[in-house]
Amino acid sequence: MPGSGPTHGETLSRALQAIDERTFWSAYPEHAKAYGEEAPVEGEEAFKAHLGTEFDTGQANDGFVAVEESSPYGLDLNISYPKTTVDRVIADAGSAMDSWRRTTPTERADVCLEILSRLADRSFEMAQAVMHTTGQAPTMAFQAGGPHALDRALEAVAYAYREQNQLPGPTTWEKPQGSRPPLVIDKEWLIKPRGIAVTIGVSTFPTWNGYPGIFASLATGNPVIIKPHQATVLPLALFTRIARAALAEMGHDPNVIQMIVDTPGNFVAKDLVMRPEVGIVDYTGGSAFGDWLETNVTHAEVYTEKAGVNSVILDSADDLKGVFRNLSVSMTMYSGQMCTTPQNLFVPAEGIPTADGIATYDDIVAGFVGAIDGLLGDEARAVSILGAIKGADTAARIDAAEGSGTVLSHSRTVTSDEFPDANIRTPAIVEVDAADKDTYMSEMFGPVIFVVKTGSRQESIDLAREAAIRSGAITWLAYATEPDAIATIIDAAVDGGVSVAFNLTGGLFVNQSAAYSDFHVTGANAAGNASLTDPAFVTGRFHVIGVRMEPAVAS
Amino acid sequence: MPGSGPTHGETLSRALQAIDERTFWSAYPEHAKAYGEEAPVEGEEAFKAHLGTEFDTGQANDGFVAVEESSPYGLDLNISYPKTTVDRVIADAGSAMDSWRRTTPTERADVCLEILSRLADRSFEMAQAVMHTTGQAPTMAFQAGGPHALDRALEAVAYAYREQNQLPGPTTWEKPQGSRPPLVIDKEWLIKPRGIAVTIGVSTFPTWNGYPGIFASLATGNPVIIKPHQATVLPLALFTRIARAALAEMGHDPNVIQMIVDTPGNFVAKDLVMRPEVGIVDYTGGSAFGDWLETNVTHAEVYTEKAGVNSVILDSADDLKGVFRNLSVSMTMYSGQMCTTPQNLFVPAEGIPTADGIATYDDIVAGFVGAIDGLLGDEARAVSILGAIKGADTAARIDAAEGSGTVLSHSRTVTSDEFPDANIRTPAIVEVDAADKDTYMSEMFGPVIFVVKTGSRQESIDLAREAAIRSGAITWLAYATEPDAIATIIDAAVDGGVSVAFNLTGGLFVNQSAAYSDFHVTGANAAGNASLTDPAFVTGRFHVIGVRMEPAVAS
Repeated sequence: MPGSGPTHGETLSRALQAIDERTFWSAYPEHAKAYGEEAPVEGEEAFKAHLGTEFDTGQANDGFVAVEESSPYGLDLNISYPKTTVDRVIADAGSAMDSWRRTTPTERADVCLEILSRLADRSFEMAQAVMHTTGQAPTMAFQAGGPHALDRALEAVAYAYREQNQLPGPTTWEKPQGSRPPLVIDKEWLIKPRGIAVTIGVSTFPTWNGYPGIFASLATGNPVIIKPHQATVLPLALFTRIARAALAEMGHDPNVIQMIVDTPGNFVAKDLVMRPEVGIVDYTGGSAFGDWLETNVTHAEVYTEKAGVNSVILDSADDLKGVFRNLSVSMTMYSGQMCTTPQNLFVPAEGIPTADGIATYDDIVAGFVGAIDGLLGDEARAVSILGAIKGADTAARIDAAEGSGTVLSHSRTVTSDEFPDANIRTPAIVEVDAADKDTYMSEMFGPVIFVVKTGSRQESIDLAREAAIRSGAITWLAYATEPDAIATIIDAAVDGGVSVAFNLTGGLFVNQSAAYSDFHVTGANAAGNASLTDPAFVTGRFHVIGVRMEPAVAS
Repeated sequence: MPGSGPTHGETLSRALQAIDERTFWSAYPEHAKAYGEEAPVEGEEAFKAHLGTEFDTGQANDGFVAVEESSPYGLDLNISYPKTTVDRVIADAGSAMDSWRRTTPTERADVCLEILSRLADRSFEMAQAVMHTTGQAPTMAFQAGGPHALDRALEAVAYAYREQNQLPGPTTWEKPQGSRPPLVIDKEWLIKPRGIAVTIGVSTFPTWNGYPGIFASLATGNPVIIKPHQATVLPLALFTRIARAALAEMGHDPNVIQMIVDTPGNFVAKDLVMRPEVGIVDYTGGSAFGDWLETNVTHAEVYTEKAGVNSVILDSADDLKGVFRNLSVSMTMYSGQMCTTPQNLFVPAEGIPTADGIATYDDIVAGFVGAIDGLLGDEARAVSILGAIKGADTAARIDAAEGSGTVLSHSRTVTSDEFPDANIRTPAIVEVDAADKDTYMSEMFGPVIFVVKTGSRQESIDLAREAAIRSGAITWLAYATEPDAIATIIDAAVDGGVSVAFNLTGGLFVNQSAAYSDFHVTGANAAGNASLTDPAFVTGRFHVIGVRMEPAVAS
């Protein structure tokens, strides 16, 4: 990380400008060179030093316990983590809240920025931790696990700071009373954090999806207990250790941040979130537990990002080759394990207009499948794009998908020279009938692509909307050249509550969501009830207590 | 109402300034003279013209139905209201949303301001409707039912406008790519209202408590279905008629606002809120149904104001007479039927320090009871302060309270010359033991005052906090002169999640909550989960849909 940069205050000011303007900005460089030549190697060494150890976050513990952490690249992680109890972390968080809530929003933002700065210095260590627990390819693990996650965190801090600072300082309220003296009351407003926050981590993007809720809670005065995904612990454990050290060195109770892990057969999330002291729950993961949280945790604010069925709508295109080039990357990167990856490609049977005349359905399918097969034809390149498969049940999903329609391209196993035990698969591309909604309107997380043959361009839009309303959706990618078609698709996207990107043929992929500019998840459909980051993501994390005082009469 | 005033845009700008500064401001005059000499008489005539009629809101209906509306002043209201069904109002709201959501935040704010302006013109008619359904005395019915309610509504519009306008207009996002051309993406953000909003009205302050949610939903693009309290229908029916007329005249679907009433034996609220099309519920009323909504309506945002146990803490006072003068009003006004009325007066057995030395417990009790007895000794003045009793079960509560301790002053019936059938009672003042928490830590809505003899000044604070945490609280009123005591009380108030006023001896009463300045209810304890009006009250009422577009390459 570069040495002397802007102060924390300057960085926060720039972030506040960024969330207002929503133009491009980033606080943490995404290009490796900015971190110095030695950083990648040092990061890898630091990561390797954790393997097979008792990873101490600095929390009170009853020793260390083994967890069910797994490495898609086949490493033997064998890391154990502090053993604690729900009672203890709740009690310690309660004590920590007592002092943390007395800090000002500016002090809290400063602590958050310091933690982020320290995390930035460790970006290559974090990259390795993310790569070997999630299966992401190295570049994604570095960018999404490091700087992009930090930008998303800073964005949340900026929103939290902005919303808290909309309150004025102490003020005198003076109400005229006609000819009598005015009513005069001195007023001030105090922030009361909502309560202990729990973050339930996800297996695929633990930092990118975890930081926003963690930092939004921290910045609004709430202590945070982190319950990482049982199979992806190290990245958030590393965060916990770094954050606690920063808190302690800055004179705060380190128990503002704690971690509690699941151990084999003992999943603690439900016990944790049902504690009445819990005021906030942030969750990223599958829909079943997300739905359970939304329905059962009525004593706390619950922010979820669950699953969805993302669609590509082909209506018309000038540059069909560019379309396929872009789609081949967005639909294969990290093996479809991003919640933003498109699953369904809707292609009208009649074909679509292009700059070179009508492209037939068969032309389109051949071009699309050919682009993906070409991209993944080279083993080394395939490894660098696909990463490795995280979920144990993904192989079964691939088989199920191949049995549900006409296979256009079979999933095959890819071998990595560097990681011979890695679990790497190309996507199954399966053509399904538009009437077979139960198949393609369900989420098939992982390397599964459905090509849906529709009766018309309008039917493509209608089916994409129906999938979004039925199963949720985070992204749509549409190709359309005529204003009427674009307007129709935007209208359907608003109906479905899903964000939409048009005509991506260059270097931006629909999977990518830029901090300070793109809202990630709308909250408006079943894919999640929260949005990273909008004001609603922070305003529920604190309350305001008013204090009124009648001035003493001068004697 | 004064003729040519500021434009709607100017009024909105001033309101935006007011919510930032939180100093005194009001858009709608609270003094009757501002409305012209004829206004009170014309308002009364307009009200009387509704009696015994079929009150047409302009909605589709199957005729008109009788309701269980009651008048605490004993008038025979005998008004019937449009008969409709949950299916119909949901369907018509859905259609209305389709066009209403396409308006801009500025257009919606303009419609809201126009509705408020028309309501302001009808403030005396509304005052009569509020008085004769709620039992409020005339001045309160005018101020709280008219201008103060309109200010609270405008405040919500301002918040909704401000939060929606934090989004920039269409923007170009340009990400540098080193030596390669930058990534350029055009972006815009569209607001998607959350869904059909339901407002469940309260029997005591139907407009003051109802307008904020109604206008916050309207201003963010959601149609609103109003379900008035079964015993207090006319005020919100009048609102519905006026709002629908304004909508239609401004070219909008009047079904953006609809009303559906309970009929004897057929309460529609549960059916209504459990409809999946409902995205927002605003509720003011008793805790039982509020708790039910919070627990069961997990598919919608639920904003509640329920009940609480408000406390007065006597720690020390310079001017004990001023204390009693102020308390005698705040604890009797509208017979304790304000959710902000103090119920419990905590008095330490050791007495408290005053400017004239220690006031003993007996001194304090005698002074307090004497002030209330004196204030209410004159029948006409008692009528003008107490108003009339709304709830049918209030008399039973008074009897129960008198049986639960030492009666310091019995509740007595007051007779109004003007309304001989009115139900008017002075408060029961009952001394209870500090250990009898089940009695005084439960809400006794209506004219019941508990004097709690505590072991010390600190115990008073601890018990008030315990009551707030256990049963919720909306207001604390504390008398304290030393900085340490003040700090201790503020800390306890933050713990209890309750706003606190200190040392009120003049013309401001703790019951009063000023729009644009005081937040009403904190949302931080069992008295309700929402606050009028903070950003959290509006940010959950809409989602943002992002649209990204790769610019066409110039050919």
